[in-house]
Amino acid sequence: MLNPQLSADGRLKHLITLDGLPKSVLTQILDTAAPFTEVAEREVKKVPLLRGKSVFNVFFENSTRTRTTFEIAAKRLSADVINLNVSTSSTSKGETLLDTVDNLCAMGADMFVMRHASSGAPYLLAQHLRNTGREHISVVNAGDGRHAHPTQGLLDMYTIRHYKKDFTNLTVAVVGDVLHSRVARSEIAALTTLGVPEVRVIGPKTLLPTDVERMGVRVFHNMEEGLRGVDVVMMLRLQNERMQGALLPSSQEYFKFYGLTEEKLALAAKDAIVLHPGPMNRGVEIDSAVADGANAVILPQVTFGIAVRMAVMSMLAAGN
Amino acid sequence: MLNPQLSADGRLKHLITLDGLPKSVLTQILDTAAPFTEVAEREVKKVPLLRGKSVFNVFFENSTRTRTTFEIAAKRLSADVINLNVSTSSTSKGETLLDTVDNLCAMGADMFVMRHASSGAPYLLAQHLRNTGREHISVVNAGDGRHAHPTQGLLDMYTIRHYKKDFTNLTVAVVGDVLHSRVARSEIAALTTLGVPEVRVIGPKTLLPTDVERMGVRVFHNMEEGLRGVDVVMMLRLQNERMQGALLPSSQEYFKFYGLTEEKLALAAKDAIVLHPGPMNRGVEIDSAVADGANAVILPQVTFGIAVRMAVMSMLAAGN
Amino acid sequence: MLNPQLSADGRLKHLITLDGLPKSVLTQILDTAAPFTEVAEREVKKVPLLRGKSVFNVFFENSTRTRTTFEIAAKRLSADVINLNVSTSSTSKGETLLDTVDNLCAMGADMFVMRHASSGAPYLLAQHLRNTGREHISVVNAGDGRHAHPTQGLLDMYTIRHYKKDFTNLTVAVVGDVLHSRVARSEIAALTTLGVPEVRVIGPKTLLPTDVERMGVRVFHNMEEGLRGVDVVMMLRLQNERMQGALLPSSQEYFKFYGLTEEKLALAAKDAIVLHPGPMNRGVEIDSAVADGANAVILPQVTFGIAVRMAVMSMLAAGN
Repeated sequence: MLNPQLSADGRLKHLITLDGLPKSVLTQILDTAAPFTEVAEREVKKVPLLRGKSVFNVFFENSTRTRTTFEIAAKRLSADVINLNVSTSSTSKGETLLDTVDNLCAMGADMFVMRHASSGAPYLLAQHLRNTGREHISVVNAGDGRHAHPTQGLLDMYTIRHYKKDFTNLTVAVVGDVLHSRVARSEIAALTTLGVPEVRVIGPKTLLPTDVERMGVRVFHNMEEGLRGVDVVMMLRLQNERMQGALLPSSQEYFKFYGLTEEKLALAAKDAIVLHPGPMNRGVEIDSAVADGANAVILPQVTFGIAVRMAVMSMLAAGN
Repeated sequence: MLNPQLSADGRLKHLITLDGLPKSVLTQILDTAAPFTEVAEREVKKVPLLRGKSVFNVFFENSTRTRTTFEIAAKRLSADVINLNVSTSSTSKGETLLDTVDNLCAMGADMFVMRHASSGAPYLLAQHLRNTGREHISVVNAGDGRHAHPTQGLLDMYTIRHYKKDFTNLTVAVVGDVLHSRVARSEIAALTTLGVPEVRVIGPKTLLPTDVERMGVRVFHNMEEGLRGVDVVMMLRLQNERMQGALLPSSQEYFKFYGLTEEKLALAAKDAIVLHPGPMNRGVEIDSAVADGANAVILPQVTFGIAVRMAVMSMLAAGN
Repeated sequence: MLNPQLSADGRLKHLITLDGLPKSVLTQILDTAAPFTEVAEREVKKVPLLRGKSVFNVFFENSTRTRTTFEIAAKRLSADVINLNVSTSSTSKGETLLDTVDNLCAMGADMFVMRHASSGAPYLLAQHLRNTGREHISVVNAGDGRHAHPTQGLLDMYTIRHYKKDFTNLTVAVVGDVLHSRVARSEIAALTTLGVPEVRVIGPKTLLPTDVERMGVRVFHNMEEGLRGVDVVMMLRLQNERMQGALLPSSQEYFKFYGLTEEKLALAAKDAIVLHPGPMNRGVEIDSAVADGANAVILPQVTFGIAVRMAVMSMLAAGN
């Protein structure tokens, strides 16, 4: 079966998940992003690649930050951007997701950027577009349930490549609530595809999927052991609602065992880089000394994220 | 008395209601819309007709869908669009509607697109603009109370003309909650003006205005009788809140008598078209088999709606 | 110590407060604004001064009206504008203000327009930008706590200069709730700097700061006395929440003593002008006869406000 994200001749049609996306395509996206980092440095931060295109940011889950990054990326590509918070919109009037989407297609959409609480919603959308003969419209997954957040995974890869040049000699640790994290799934898929020889996950048993080893990773429950010698530390955000459940005793307890402090980071390679997808819970999963320290590359991640999203959008527009 | 929507020499100044708008103007709008449908097919979906104009979408009632269609139309005309959800804004600070409007005028508004829960609010606005010597500013009614939704009526006419070519040999049925529907009022006004010889309304007594015959329509309470031989079926949305009141026993009951099914539709002309203003309540006023069937032109309505709104806006900008 | 709003060579870097801003800079802003009033009269209301710049409207307090004025000003300067209602966003996920700001900087922000409930927040932001080597990014204070609302103060000065030509022979009264008003603070600072020989404040003891005389004003608790012979009456908005507290007996009572009526206005100079920052509480701090009367310049204030904001933004963009 062909990857539904790729056209018959291998061009990117949608970006739904990094799982199963070939190394060549991942590398092409990162290569395409590189010149876009330079657009942000210009006097006039715009290129006309999506001029006159209609990009719909359809957010069924509210996320100002992610929506903003896509809005900026699309505007710098000169697209017309329409923001839709669908949580508070037609769906509450009893309309189905596909009716909403069909309507936006009929308005002349060229691209959907979709965030949805249900895993698989963007895939369903792409499938629906194919079934209804509207394959010229692209879908970008901006996060679906616990499934995937591919542009986050890509910007993380861009960041790692920027600082480490080569993936094939790295040890990378993903730390925290892997169980509930779409970011972790996208990161692990990309790291594996790009040839990172050792990917570790670090977290308490209650926050790791039961079959996590099947993702091709080494599992550590002890953070000190897991961090030893790693080149890249990818922190995950701990969602506050986990604290109220039975999964964790308290945020202080969590910080003690899995919060990234300077002491724990000292066990990693001297030039290790620290990533975090944001927003950070300082004093919960990461100490401020690390978040603001010399090893952190958390703000460059955000900058690269704009370039990566511009790259994805321009490739989709060119491919469709 | 001159129609307040028209200038002394007959050009469109505002679009507030289709009631009383001459056939020549309705036809001119539909003719103007035709080339705009082609803009949506272009690589760059933009024309510079409203470049540098400030269009204010002032929505006193939330409606993401309608607001979006106007936003897209205005952006494709290259206008600067400002969205204002006034329900959550200054009016809650005790400011009057006219003070809000005066302020937006003072900011350099060229056009207001207004949705309001009170019938007559856009008319009040147009009158106020005339009284205060700001006749260069246009008003487009995006739905006011139970009164009118003229761009919806126009896009419906565009759709009918597209599929049926000629209005003067048609039988058209408007089905459902006519009583509470601004869409129905605009549709009936336009159909009558454009020379449709037989307009029928179909619905239970509790959902039809008592004096509905005075609108020049034939009334049917039995849907099977009403649909017999019609060329166009215009379904209305059944608002959920009607269900909770005393007007209707239940949505199942409603569907049984007034839901459009394939069986009922079989009584209409073989090539009858089915319209719906959206969002649809599938299984309440329309069956999915019909909504997705060969006779439905519900998505083309949406596409034509963008073109019709571009036509109206460009005519207003040219006239003022 | 250098004024943190000015660069070493005296150019405007941020606009945070009018307090301490030299007369030459205030005058320069007013002079720069003048040609921008003419942009709003053009067929195409746009100039390319901020083309390709990313302006973030970061509103930690909701204010549709003020946000709209900045959005229009930025769009007429051809900037890309991103609106962020941060009250409902990441900060609720536990992120700090500075983390939010750092993220937006990393996305390539050129300018922040910030409204915040806490006095000093925009200053904190400007300081943070300097400390982190991002001095090319500008901050415009769109109202912080009870501290300042400098663009409001500037547009008031523009309005006064437009009608009165010269500041140095005026008597100006600021009337109402000075205690809670950031507008009043900005107005008094600007009037004093621009050489107005007599600035009066009028209000009940409970709504004036205890040390108000230190601002260089004459204090009146009797409105009739305070208005006698003034050339300019600057009304303040009375926030509804003051009514529920112990500060005021009732809005009727307030109107009786401090509401601006035609009778009270008759005590001022015959050609006195009346300003109000909006939104107005008609019948509370101002009578409709005055608000809509010949002396009111309340709507011109709004028009000039767009030009003044364009002037400030273009000066900041040029200076950084």
